Amino acid sequence: MEFLVNIRIKWPEGMSAQELERISVEERHKARELQASGHMVRMWRVPGRRENWGLWRAADATELHAKIASLPVFPFMDVTVHPLAWHPVDPTRPAEIDAC
Amino acid sequence: MEFLVNIRIKWPEGMSAQELERISVEERHKARELQASGHMVRMWRVPGRRENWGLWRAADATELHAKIASLPVFPFMDVTVHPLAWHPVDPTRPAEIDAC
Amino acid sequence: MEFLVNIRIKWPEGMSAQELERISVEERHKARELQASGHMVRMWRVPGRRENWGLWRAADATELHAKIASLPVFPFMDVTVHPLAWHPVDPTRPAEIDAC
Amino acid sequence: MEFLVNIRIKWPEGMSAQELERISVEERHKARELQASGHMVRMWRVPGRRENWGLWRAADATELHAKIASLPVFPFMDVTVHPLAWHPVDPTRPAEIDAC
Amino acid sequence: MEFLVNIRIKWPEGMSAQELERISVEERHKARELQASGHMVRMWRVPGRRENWGLWRAADATELHAKIASLPVFPFMDVTVHPLAWHPVDPTRPAEIDAC
Amino acid sequence: MEFLVNIRIKWPEGMSAQELERISVEERHKARELQASGHMVRMWRVPGRRENWGLWRAADATELHAKIASLPVFPFMDVTVHPLAWHPVDPTRPAEIDAC
Amino acid sequence: MEFLVNIRIKWPEGMSAQELERISVEERHKARELQASGHMVRMWRVPGRRENWGLWRAADATELHAKIASLPVFPFMDVTVHPLAWHPVDPTRPAEIDAC
Amino acid sequence: MEFLVNIRIKWPEGMSAQELERISVEERHKARELQASGHMVRMWRVPGRRENWGLWRAADATELHAKIASLPVFPFMDVTVHPLAWHPVDPTRPAEIDAC
Amino acid sequence: MEFLVNIRIKWPEGMSAQELERISVEERHKARELQASGHMVRMWRVPGRRENWGLWRAADATELHAKIASLPVFPFMDVTVHPLAWHPVDPTRPAEIDAC
Amino acid sequence: MEFLVNIRIKWPEGMSAQELERISVEERHKARELQASGHMVRMWRVPGRRENWGLWRAADATELHAKIASLPVFPFMDVTVHPLAWHPVDPTRPAEIDAC
Repeated sequence: MEFLVNIRIKWPEGMSAQELERISVEERHKARELQASGHMVRMWRVPGRRENWGLWRAADATELHAKIASLPVFPFMDVTVHPLAWHPVDPTRPAEIDAC
Repeated sequence: MEFLVNIRIKWPEGMSAQELERISVEERHKARELQASGHMVRMWRVPGRRENWGLWRAADATELHAKIASLPVFPFMDVTVHPLAWHPVDPTRPAEIDAC
Repeated sequence: MEFLVNIRIKWPEGMSAQELERISVEERHKARELQASGHMVRMWRVPGRRENWGLWRAADATELHAKIASLPVFPFMDVTVHPLAWHPVDPTRPAEIDAC
Repeated sequence: MEFLVNIRIKWPEGMSAQELERISVEERHKARELQASGHMVRMWRVPGRRENWGLWRAADATELHAKIASLPVFPFMDVTVHPLAWHPVDPTRPAEIDAC
Repeated sequence: MEFLVNIRIKWPEGMSAQELERISVEERHKARELQASGHMVRMWRVPGRRENWGLWRAADATELHAKIASLPVFPFMDVTVHPLAWHPVDPTRPAEIDAC
Repeated sequence: MEFLVNIRIKWPEGMSAQELERISVEERHKARELQASGHMVRMWRVPGRRENWGLWRAADATELHAKIASLPVFPFMDVTVHPLAWHPVDPTRPAEIDAC
Repeated sequence: MEFLVNIRIKWPEGMSAQELERISVEERHKARELQASGHMVRMWRVPGRRENWGLWRAADATELHAKIASLPVFPFMDVTVHPLAWHPVDPTRPAEIDAC
Repeated sequence: MEFLVNIRIKWPEGMSAQELERISVEERHKARELQASGHMVRMWRVPGRRENWGLWRAADATELHAKIASLPVFPFMDVTVHPLAWHPVDPTRPAEIDAC
Repeated sequence: MEFLVNIRIKWPEGMSAQELERISVEERHKARELQASGHMVRMWRVPGRRENWGLWRAADATELHAKIASLPVFPFMDVTVHPLAWHPVDPTRPAEIDAC
Repeated sequence: MEFLVNIRIKWPEGMSAQELERISVEERHKARELQASGHMVRMWRVPGRRENWGLWRAADATELHAKIASLPVFPFMDVTVHPLAWHPVDPTRPAEIDAC
């Protein structure tokens, strides 16, 4: 199942530049891992903001939560999950969806 | 440039089933055309609603408007466009984005 | 997977009492069918409103949409779907959730 | 009477990991107690968020408040209570509701 | 249990003055009945608007819904129900509430 | 004139338990005083929240402000005032309101 | 007591130009009457909109409602009333307000 | 003085294609007139919507209202006006603004 | 040109009573100055809140900003400006407005 | 492509006057640079607020983000980007837009 996920990041005020750098490096490593496993499919930046839209894949909401919560930046994220259904005109849909 | 587009459809109350069917058929034809030209990349249904999320590609907002406005259902659509920037961890990003 | 679904019903202004009665009877039949198949688990009325909260079960958002859209009142419904994940303290959770 | 309760948790910034662990353990004990007494019926996690939806049972809003306020995490919770009425198609409704 | 209820009235556009008068007369009769039975305790008008705030009493949300839905104007009402708990400083509270 | 007043309380993060206890005691004394003078008529707790609804009486908005601002918790309150007009079906209305 | 009143006007779709002209003339007559009686103190247009802000004076919310409801355009108005208290720095305040 | 103006257009449901064409032609003529007089400085389309952002110039809000209300589409427009002040870094600002 | 201005004040948490007193005294002096110069015409308190509505006069939005920003409390204010146009029924309007 | 950009600035509470002055000077230098390169076209102050509206030009949302993020005040900004399409009546539009 696919999910459209909006993530807004709000760093705590007192965080040092080193701590922020360390978490950012870990975040990128974890992101590559989630891409390799097929959970994080696409990721876009909202221009001008510390916010992104992502296309995620997971068996269900429980697995999706576990994957998002595994990100090092998770404690500083405000996450909104939009569940997605197959659309009859989506070019990548399986054949049986046409009949819906 | 990519755009995340949310479309809510509100059919006018008096529309006949035939008219609705005719427009829906035309809509699917137009959608296939926009997929073939690379403008409509993905399309998802919001479960339980006459609403979809789509990933669109266009040279700029002017071309995007022309493509969306060419849809037969356009007069009945409430459209919200979210401009998207490349994200450094997106798996499909061009190499030069890594340096941002 | 479980979903919390909020449904607001808005009858069109000109609908006759007979048409409304006919649809309501069909709606109850369909609701019983969805309960028998395990898709509609619980249903509550929001006091004072033509609105309900429901606990639904479906394989994914695509099946959920198909089930909701099969209701005779669907054309008059404004539906909001909240995807639900297992919570570690839920009394009905499977044993493996405790480890999350 | 049943209530649908949405709870968002916001930990204070300076809380130590030990303090957080201590409160979390106490919270799970209290939750089991509320389940055993029949007040906390179901509990779901909102994916990606420190937020849950719960189905609660209490004699009235006063008892519900007392039960929610007894949770160790209560000082850090933003709670919204939705009162629920029996719905004529709910599969668990008492027989006399059918006549409404 | 007490409930704070906000009611906004929106008359349908084509309603005749006679029909509106007939419903208004029936509404006042029904309101007196609900006051006599102790369900409608207080009623205030929001200045400048076709909207009121009311203090209602009912065994639970199901009875409250039945009472509100019995009003002749119900089909034209947008109702929001706020469940109320006893407050320790309320001058009319029962003695046992002081201990909460 | 009557006013419906919604009050949300937000304690500052660093307040000690003693300071909070001291203010709470003073608050209850002041509340009794306002009830004796007829300004605070009813007070309800919003279940699950540090929030209340109150029915207040004052000559006008200036006196109402003075009374609310005299509460010891005032610096930590977010207050919303709803002015109320007599409603023709209110059971406690003066006789001359019936003619409106 | 003074009130800040926001009024948005929404003419019904089928109203004839003559009907609209007739109501507008009556509205201006009534407005002059309310100014002469000291209830309508100031009136401003929100630029670009069928909306105004007005400064009104009335004994209380009940009188204010009666005055607003006497306007011929009232059935087509969406009204929001803001109760106003004297401010210590207002240049027109009575002397005793300085002490607040 | 400059104003940022957002205009959303909502055509009435029953309008004929001819009537819509006639108004649109008149609108473009009027728009050119307002550009020649220096009142309508820039005009942008919100992609996917019947909505525009415009940069307008007028002596004050009264003149701005008169100019916007002179547009043939005005009866079908929902207009929001944002007043603008000179910004010290604006490249077109007059010299005396630098000192602010 | 007149402006309706809403100001919400939020004092920073750590401010001492002396500092607050000093700023408040300076604020009243500055307010009298702005009244003498005709910029601050009226000022009302929103009951129960640290918020006011004011009627201001200025040549344009740039002068209005300079006057509001000159207030000692400005760093702690959340300000919303509503531009106002003359209304044909305003009792203080100049004669030429009647013709609009 | 043009973008309408709204920027709200929120300085952190503890920032010293010197630090704020240093960042402000750097901000003005950077702004002039962005004007010289044609990215920052116009800039307006929202009266009474630490907020501005700007007209920006960039190849796409990725370049726009890079330019906005290069501002020294960026860590303290809340930015909202509105993508803009050419409007047929804009006086500065290229000739080929007339045909849309």
